[in-house]
Amino acid sequence: MDRRSFLRSSALGGAAAAGTLAAPAYAQGRRTLTLVTTWGRGLAGVHDAAQYCADAITAITDGQLTIDLKAAGELVGAFEVFDAVSAGQADMYHGVDYYFLGQHPALSFFSQVPFGMTFQEYNNWIHHAGGRELADELYSIFGLKPFSAGNTGAQAGGWFRKEINSPEDFQGLKFRMPGQGGQVLGKLGASVQNLPGSEVYQALASGAIDGTEWIGPWADEKAGFQEITKIYYTAGFHEPGPNLNLTVNLDVFEDLAPAHRAAIEQAAGACNIWSMSQFLANNAAALTRLQAGGVRVLEYPDSVWDAFGAASLEVIAEPMGDPLYKKCHDSYMASLKSSAAWNGRAEAEFTAQRNRVMGL
Amino acid sequence: MDRRSFLRSSALGGAAAAGTLAAPAYAQGRRTLTLVTTWGRGLAGVHDAAQYCADAITAITDGQLTIDLKAAGELVGAFEVFDAVSAGQADMYHGVDYYFLGQHPALSFFSQVPFGMTFQEYNNWIHHAGGRELADELYSIFGLKPFSAGNTGAQAGGWFRKEINSPEDFQGLKFRMPGQGGQVLGKLGASVQNLPGSEVYQALASGAIDGTEWIGPWADEKAGFQEITKIYYTAGFHEPGPNLNLTVNLDVFEDLAPAHRAAIEQAAGACNIWSMSQFLANNAAALTRLQAGGVRVLEYPDSVWDAFGAASLEVIAEPMGDPLYKKCHDSYMASLKSSAAWNGRAEAEFTAQRNRVMGL
Repeated sequence: MDRRSFLRSSALGGAAAAGTLAAPAYAQGRRTLTLVTTWGRGLAGVHDAAQYCADAITAITDGQLTIDLKAAGELVGAFEVFDAVSAGQADMYHGVDYYFLGQHPALSFFSQVPFGMTFQEYNNWIHHAGGRELADELYSIFGLKPFSAGNTGAQAGGWFRKEINSPEDFQGLKFRMPGQGGQVLGKLGASVQNLPGSEVYQALASGAIDGTEWIGPWADEKAGFQEITKIYYTAGFHEPGPNLNLTVNLDVFEDLAPAHRAAIEQAAGACNIWSMSQFLANNAAALTRLQAGGVRVLEYPDSVWDAFGAASLEVIAEPMGDPLYKKCHDSYMASLKSSAAWNGRAEAEFTAQRNRVMGL
Repeated sequence: MDRRSFLRSSALGGAAAAGTLAAPAYAQGRRTLTLVTTWGRGLAGVHDAAQYCADAITAITDGQLTIDLKAAGELVGAFEVFDAVSAGQADMYHGVDYYFLGQHPALSFFSQVPFGMTFQEYNNWIHHAGGRELADELYSIFGLKPFSAGNTGAQAGGWFRKEINSPEDFQGLKFRMPGQGGQVLGKLGASVQNLPGSEVYQALASGAIDGTEWIGPWADEKAGFQEITKIYYTAGFHEPGPNLNLTVNLDVFEDLAPAHRAAIEQAAGACNIWSMSQFLANNAAALTRLQAGGVRVLEYPDSVWDAFGAASLEVIAEPMGDPLYKKCHDSYMASLKSSAAWNGRAEAEFTAQRNRVMGL
């Protein structure tokens, strides 16, 4: 999809999306940028990452850039942030871009591909193996400039009202899962829903959905899913390391002073590892609490993983007719293969030996 | 060891180390800070990380802070940077602090413990599980303020002139390995040498040492060890995720404008994941080249891993009479256990299933 077809299909398209809005100038050397998000205010971890970026940019520019954070629904809805920033209604957004595969399917590579990259593998690609250049090519179609600024780590398979013992158990299941992961469950016969985080609890409690994935024990416990069901799968195929972007309107970005552009880039980079670590530092203790409260922790059998894998390969292949999707795909897969090869010879081998020798 | 005993033992101690040097003021709002390193100029990856920090801090402060990078030997030697910055001879250093266990044994927790934390586990601890507060307590004894600013990822076991088939093969081996890892090899009967990176090639080529670890395929290939020997162990016990710090003289840091303190913190944070990714993005391809050039890639047998483990536990236990060491140890080990528990249920389980299903 090129920029023209996007503009035709965008609810917020037209002159605004074409970048014809005059960017507001600095006033006495100061400027306020509006940051919208795909997260409800206070959602554990993900809103924290957006807040980190806002605070850090404000701090290191001594308030010359002040970031006004509007959570989902405060200025625009969770699923409207991409179009809003593209159109210049807001200056930047923090979110995860698999919500916007309707705008371009290649956004999956810069958020999450099922059976795809972990956090570290993604960062290898984006910083040092061609990902950055492809991100710039893709996002510039929409007048956007993205920076990695958070990650949840490998997400839990999710919450179910019944055990999953075979791929057939997904038949007819009403399940919340966004992005290409949701398309995979659709191939297994599930009825997939794409809801923003702030609406998931109510949907599960009301029976509008039979099950959901969200993030992992710490964020899931705060969301309260254990109050509704006790069946929890901790490993999942769908989001091994979803990349959260801080994405700036490109005209706004290019109009900023060079030091302020650097401030946004460095704050996002620092947020990236801070955010990933927040989830991973808190998950084990949260899981222990959940189990103490009666939650049963289960793992999918290999037959289910195999079905996830076969359907994922189908879903990943479907948009290959789009040349930019294919270009991103080929670069992403080559980098994934390279990263995985080294990890198996070094950190994974070390960790297995350490955990064996130390009894971890 | 308290600050007083450090000052007595420091070659650069006395009035300077006590922080009585007047910090130079800003001149017309600008200030140059001298950054020394434990790395020879141009050493792949590690010097790059120091350069990233220097460039980023200069960029986001619009040159109000200009960082003057002096590589090892250009102002002070690689192993003198800790004392030099503590004493105010230089403003900050980039390096790895297991070189300075003579100043305080607990510096191992903020650089590398053998059989200890990976990069992600360390960041979980430092950002969200008490590590930051303990780092501040320890480094403030020496008038220093550290920020994580780089990591090599799990290091290769290293280069040998003969195969290692049992723990006895380390008897009498002259091997370069710094920090507590080197102490472990000492317990196995090796004659351990602690050399800065820039001196390792010559020592191996001349026969002054029989073998060495350095970093991993990409950095090792650039160092040229494959020209000397062809036996390479890719997994190692000694440095699963060595943390590189950007460490600032505490008086200098506290004298900076708040925005400039924030600039240093955010630039270091962004460097941290950028640096880790640089190594991991490049290792697989470098290993393929090394193998094409005749390098044999081997793995230690379990008996050797067991011996590494037993000796590591001894080495880690030895300084426990120091209360601050014990405090850091207990916090570090609790966080490691928690991080490892969750990883085994999520990313490690996912990665094993992905690599199986996808044939990676």
